[in-house]
This record gives sequence, C-alpha cells and structure tokens, in this order.
Amino acid sequence: MSEDLKDENQTQNPPEDEGYGFSADLFHAVEDALEESRVAEVEDLVEGLHEADTADLLESLGREERQLLMEIMGAGFDPEILPYLDETVREEIVEWLGPAGFAKLVQALDSDDAVELVQELDEDMRIRILAALPQAYRRVIEESLSYPEDSAGRLMQREIVAVPSVWTVGETIDYMRVTDSLPDDFYDIYIVDPRHHPVGFIPASRMMRSVRSVRLDQIMEEDMRVIPLDLDQEDVAHMFRQYDLISAPVVEKSGRLVGVITIDDVVDVIDEEAGDDLMKMGGVNEADFYDDVADTTKSRFTWLAVNLVTAVLASAVIGLFDATIEKVVALAVLMPIVASMGGNAGTQTLTVAVRSLAMKNLSEINASRFISKELIIGFINGGLFALLTGTVAWLWFGQPDLALVIAAAMIINMVVAGLCGALIPLGLEHFKVDPAVASSVFLTTVTDIIGFFAFLGLATFFLL
Amino acid sequence: MSEDLKDENQTQNPPEDEGYGFSADLFHAVEDALEESRVAEVEDLVEGLHEADTADLLESLGREERQLLMEIMGAGFDPEILPYLDETVREEIVEWLGPAGFAKLVQALDSDDAVELVQELDEDMRIRILAALPQAYRRVIEESLSYPEDSAGRLMQREIVAVPSVWTVGETIDYMRVTDSLPDDFYDIYIVDPRHHPVGFIPASRMMRSVRSVRLDQIMEEDMRVIPLDLDQEDVAHMFRQYDLISAPVVEKSGRLVGVITIDDVVDVIDEEAGDDLMKMGGVNEADFYDDVADTTKSRFTWLAVNLVTAVLASAVIGLFDATIEKVVALAVLMPIVASMGGNAGTQTLTVAVRSLAMKNLSEINASRFISKELIIGFINGGLFALLTGTVAWLWFGQPDLALVIAAAMIINMVVAGLCGALIPLGLEHFKVDPAVASSVFLTTVTDIIGFFAFLGLATFFLL
Repeated sequence: MSEDLKDENQTQNPPEDEGYGFSADLFHAVEDALEESRVAEVEDLVEGLHEADTADLLESLGREERQLLMEIMGAGFDPEILPYLDETVREEIVEWLGPAGFAKLVQALDSDDAVELVQELDEDMRIRILAALPQAYRRVIEESLSYPEDSAGRLMQREIVAVPSVWTVGETIDYMRVTDSLPDDFYDIYIVDPRHHPVGFIPASRMMRSVRSVRLDQIMEEDMRVIPLDLDQEDVAHMFRQYDLISAPVVEKSGRLVGVITIDDVVDVIDEEAGDDLMKMGGVNEADFYDDVADTTKSRFTWLAVNLVTAVLASAVIGLFDATIEKVVALAVLMPIVASMGGNAGTQTLTVAVRSLAMKNLSEINASRFISKELIIGFINGGLFALLTGTVAWLWFGQPDLALVIAAAMIINMVVAGLCGALIPLGLEHFKVDPAVASSVFLTTVTDIIGFFAFLGLATFFLL
Repeated sequence: MSEDLKDENQTQNPPEDEGYGFSADLFHAVEDALEESRVAEVEDLVEGLHEADTADLLESLGREERQLLMEIMGAGFDPEILPYLDETVREEIVEWLGPAGFAKLVQALDSDDAVELVQELDEDMRIRILAALPQAYRRVIEESLSYPEDSAGRLMQREIVAVPSVWTVGETIDYMRVTDSLPDDFYDIYIVDPRHHPVGFIPASRMMRSVRSVRLDQIMEEDMRVIPLDLDQEDVAHMFRQYDLISAPVVEKSGRLVGVITIDDVVDVIDEEAGDDLMKMGGVNEADFYDDVADTTKSRFTWLAVNLVTAVLASAVIGLFDATIEKVVALAVLMPIVASMGGNAGTQTLTVAVRSLAMKNLSEINASRFISKELIIGFINGGLFALLTGTVAWLWFGQPDLALVIAAAMIINMVVAGLCGALIPLGLEHFKVDPAVASSVFLTTVTDIIGFFAFLGLATFFLL
C-alpha cells in the first residue's frame, strides 16, 4: 500500500500490445491455421481472447474463413461475442445458425444486450427468433421493443437498485447482500418515494463509506437528472455529457422509476452519432466498411446519382454561356477555381454548423450571431482570395479586365457560400431533417451554380 | 418500493426541458436584464443553474454581456463552471481575472480538472498562474504536466483506492470509512501486491454486497486492462470502448500503480476525437465555433489557400487543352461533371477509410481487402455513371463520340478516385500524419487533375 514498497529491481514492463486486442501476428497465425485446417491450433490461438477481440478477429477474416472459425468454435462460441460484432457480420452469423440456434445464444445475454441484437434484425428474422425464446424472456424483450427506436426505453436496463429514503445505510447494505435480482454491477443506488418516484441517489462508493446507522436521506444527492422514457438517445447522450453522469434513472410519464441508463451504453451512442455525422457528410452509409461490395456499391450509387444531377445543373449554367467561352477560352480554364473555392469555403461553414448543432452549441439563441460571423468571414476571405486569384489571372492571361471579373465573382461566391453554409443546416434542422446527411448536396449545388453564373455572367457583360 | 404503489392519480410529468440546460426563455431574460443592468434579477435567474448550464449561458452571450455577467457573479462565481467552458471563452475570463484571480479559482478544483485548464493556456500565462498557486498544489500539477500531452498521465486522477489482497471486505470497508485522502466517488477498488503493482480489481457495488469476512482475492476480478502512463489518449479511449471499461488503473514503466482513469474523462476524449476528425475533414479548426472572427478567418484562410493552389494546378491542366476547348466548347460545359463525380466518389472512400482507421477497424491486417473492395466499387459505379453521363452528353450535344469520351474519362476517374481514396489515408497513417487533416486536399487534387486530363486528353485524341 505504501509508496515505499516500490522495488525498482523487480521492474515488470507491461507487454507492448497490452489492451490493443489481437495482434497482426495472431491474425496471420489464425489465418494460416484455418487455411490448413489445423483445428487444434486454431482453438489454442483463439482460446484466451477477450470477447471484443474475438469479435474483431471474426470481422477481419474473409467470409469463408469466418464461417470456418465459427464451425471450429462450435458449441464453445461465447454469446458475449455477439454484442461486439458489427451488424453486417452478425447478420451473416444469424444466417448460418438459423433462428433457433441464434435464439439459444441470445438467451445467455443480459436483456439490454439482447434487445440491441434483436432490434437490428430484419422483421421476419426478428419474429422467428422471438418465437424461439422462452416466454418470460421474450416478454421482457418485446416490452423493450415497444418503445420507440433510439429512445431511452430501448437503451435502459430494467434491473435497478431502488430503496426508500427512510432506510439506513446498514439496512440497505443488508438488503443488497441478500437480493439476487439486482444488476451484477451498479454505480448509483436510487432513493424512491412511496409512489416509486426517484427523489435522489447515492453513489455506491459513498454508501459503502458511510456508517451503518446513517439514514439515506441524510447522505443522498437530490440534484438529480431524470430521463423520460421516450427521450431520444441523442438527447440522452447530451445529458450524460453535459452533467458528467455515470448513470441516470429512467421514468415513465407518471414519474415512476422504470429503469436505469449507464454510461457504457451512452459511450456507444456517442460513438455512433459522431461517426454517423462524419459518414453522412462524406456521402456514405454507417455500415459501409463491413457491408459487402454489392450493398456498398448500391448505397454509394444513390448519393453519387444525386451529385450527378447537381453537376449536370451546374453544367447547364455553363451551357448558357458557351458563346462567351468560345470567344474567351481563358474563362473555361479559370472557372473551376471560382466554383471550387466557393465549395470549400461553404463546406467549412457547413462543417462547423453541423457539428455545433449536434453538440447543441448552436441553437436559435445564437443562430443570428453565427450567421453574421459567417457573412463577415465570407467578405474578408472573399476579398483576400479575390485579390489572389485576380493577380494569378492577370499574370497568367495578361488581361486586367479578366482579373477584375474573376475577383468580383470570387467575392460574390464566397459570401454566398458562407451564408448558405450557415443557413442550409439551420434550415434543415428547423424542419427536422438531419443536417449532416443533406446539407452538402444543397451547398455545392448553390456554390457551383452561383460560381459559374457570376463568373461567366460578369464576363459576358464586361469582356465581350 | 413495490410496483403496486404506483398511483396514477398523482402523476407528475417531468418538466419539458428537464436536463436540457438553460432554455431560450431564460437566455433572453438574462440578456434583457443584463442590458438594463437589473443586477438582482440577473442574480436570481442564474442562481439555481447547474455549472454546465451556467457555462453554456456564458458561451452564448456576446463578449460585453459575458463580462457584465462575470462582474455580477463576482466573488460568487463557482470555479466548477470553468472546466465546462469552451477554451476560447475561458481564455477571455483568464484575461479579465488576471493570473492571481484565476489561480485562486483553480485551487478549488480537483487536480485533474486543474491540469486540464492549465495545460490549455499559453505558456506565458501558464507560468504566471503556476507561480500564483500554493506550492504543494503547484507540484501536483507540474508533475502531471511533465507527462506528454494527450497521454494517459495527463488524463489520470492521482487519488486511488488500492488495498492488499490479503485484506478482507470488512477491513477494506473500515479503511475506506476512516481514510480522507480517497477520491469522492469511485467505481473500482484496486488490489495491489507488495510492490504496489495492480493484480486485480473489485467493483464498488460488488464489494458492498459481499460478506465482511470474505478475503479480497476470493472476489477480485483478475482479467484487468492496465494502461501505461504514456499511452496516447486516443488509445486509452479505444481500450475503454473495446472492453467496456468504467475505470482502469494507470501504471508507470516499472508496473507500479500511479493513478486511475475514469470513463467520464474518456467520454470527453471520444467526443473530442470524433469531432476533431469531422472538423479537420471539413478544413476547420476544432475551436472554430467559439473563436472570434479574426482567428476563425485566419485559420480558414490557410486551408483555402492550400485549396487555391490545387485549384490552380487543375486549371493549368485545362490550360494545356485550350486549343481543343476553343474547337469543341461542349467540353468546357461537360468537364466539371467528370471532376466532380471523381471528387465525390473519392470522398466516399476517404471518409470510410478515415473513420475506420480512427476506430481501429482498418489496419494492415485488412488493408489489402479494403483496397480491392474499393477498386471493384470504383469499376462498377464508374461503369454505371459512364453509361449515365454518356447518355446525357449524347442527348444534350448529339455527338456519339463525345459521349464515348466522357464515358471513358468517367470510368478512369472513378477507379482512380477509389484507389486514391483508400491509399492516401492509409499512406498518411503509415507515416504518422493524421489522415483526417491532409487526405482530402491530396484526393481532390488527384481527382481534378485526372478528371480534366483524361476527359480533355481523350477528346483531343479522338475528337479533333
């Protein structure tokens, strides 16, 4: 216990890859062993792995190798691996095992994990798996599934530690020692009134350190955040983040305590939401990485098709000015610069807006301040890049009037870009459309069209 | 306690905005009261707020109003607000208070929070604030600051609960009841050997529920993830995520236990990293939203300047073919389509690669499988869009040979886009350059240049 017990001679370095899951070496060893069907060796290699690492291993293998490994693990396959698997890989496994085989694994899981797995299956398979579950277990899962998707009800765990405020620390500890139905591990003990409404909580560590005779209402924390059953998981994550929560009670409309959400579930949500925004802005599906070639190609095609339409629109604008271009070919050379700078400047504003909306930093309260800021930045950077591109155009083509035209178009496009980069996501959010998914198509359509129109229009007017 | 105590007549709905921080109404009330200097009213409005919400309120106000509110709160300003503030706003407050005033607030915080605040200040201010702190407190903070930035050492909390395995549950609980130097709340109790190396842990709830006479080594969990002091915070976050940890022990090189990292600190890291990637890919600084106009304009200018260079490069490629464009103006109309589709397809691949690298799903183990998948998708979607754009070009300009040229250019550019979208981030990661920050410039440079070159080059060869 004392710091003096430290013994420098007996140093023991933690292994290099501690905690990093399975290594590349292990992976290749498993791959080789699978290829040559050395079953005993595969079993040896996989045995000591944490479930999360086994899941990673399964995900990294090719489809055939994965099936082979599943067969080798056979009855020894640990159900706890399932929650760690990516959805696409998990679906593969469901197919191999069939509803009955999968239902058997699911039963071994905590109910909240089971709900997570079952809700992601397609409806047909879900019904068949539910039918294969024992009735009591099925009912718990079905009740969870009755809450809206992505709501607190789906996220929560039903096992709670709730005791009346008139109890003492000693009584509570004794109760917890003899009651089997409590969750395995928990962080907070909730104090409820006679109507089973939560009125406060006590962290487990504080409970343990308090003297047995102390009454709970003397040490409980009353400043407590309560989560409504139908709160969206994004808002749940925001509450945990905002108030540094470790766990929080979930109540139904009447105010009755019905469950608890713990931070580990929220971490998954935070990861998911942040990743989703990034993926959506890049025009890809969240499951893209693990989807097979056909699914990935299909989902990406949709997004590219939308982009093709906007690109053709932009081309149509150019088409309006083909006579001008024929006379001044330099316009064709320079026009992508105006469009590209507008697109990039707009994307900057857009990215900030999407992220700030997701983090609830941007709202109606400060929207007008944000928009003015973006307009000013658009003017300043627009002016600076007007100067730069004007100079480049002048030096390149030696035509001062061409330089003036591109400079003017640049200012116009960058101001519009700043304005639209702010207004488009704010408008989409207002109409409850996810700004991450739709903003950038709208934005680049605008900046392309305005960019080409301003540049070629001004050129037609002043250069011909 | 019993579920039957539920009384439907005494329903009590949680207030609509429960947990969502301060409302727009409150904000406007504070703003109005500040404007008219109604000090007592401001004090009333702000009083009951959670520190996180007060921080949000301060962030949402304009600079002058913020200073006014700070003055009104005066000596009653709660130091716990500081960790919740955005860096830019916090720096403003440091300026107003001066080093001595700020140091006084910092002392009231837990050491890990204090380290977080102090490390973000510029060096000059940091030195002045450290000098204003009491010696003992300063030493703790300086030791934390001696660990590399963004390492486990900076993230950890030094107060730990560590006891020898030969103790019983009863002895441990008694020890915890009488020892004041322990952290306020904790989730796991660490078991150490005589050299103070961690050998296992016991969750607080399990300890509390065990009988007093049980020896700790009978109930401790030995499968434990240990974090090296110099591990990067991104890897720390990965470990917590991978193994669903709530807290984890930090050890120095010798294996000695020196601190603990808890999940609430890791949630901040996860948020930061995910947001950072999104912001970097959009070409903006993480602090963009709260930076003032001058700082924001400056940091965005840099990124746009890099983009200008690549746009000029792409224009130079077009310039090579000005004679061709002069003869076939349709080329100028259509060429942005090829470049834009390549850019978008490449961005899709890039986004997946950046996210998968960050989540450690993509590594050398499956890099070649990822690259082949992207190549195949590039071929398929390239083929499909070749067909589509070829048809559009044919219908629009009635020239079948022009349609063939744009179709061929489309396939070439989309295959190159898929290949580069995968190879660029993998290459940057290999050379330890953050793929989120640099990938997209490289990518769009390639897709623009290849797009224009393939389209105009093929046109020159086949159409003239």
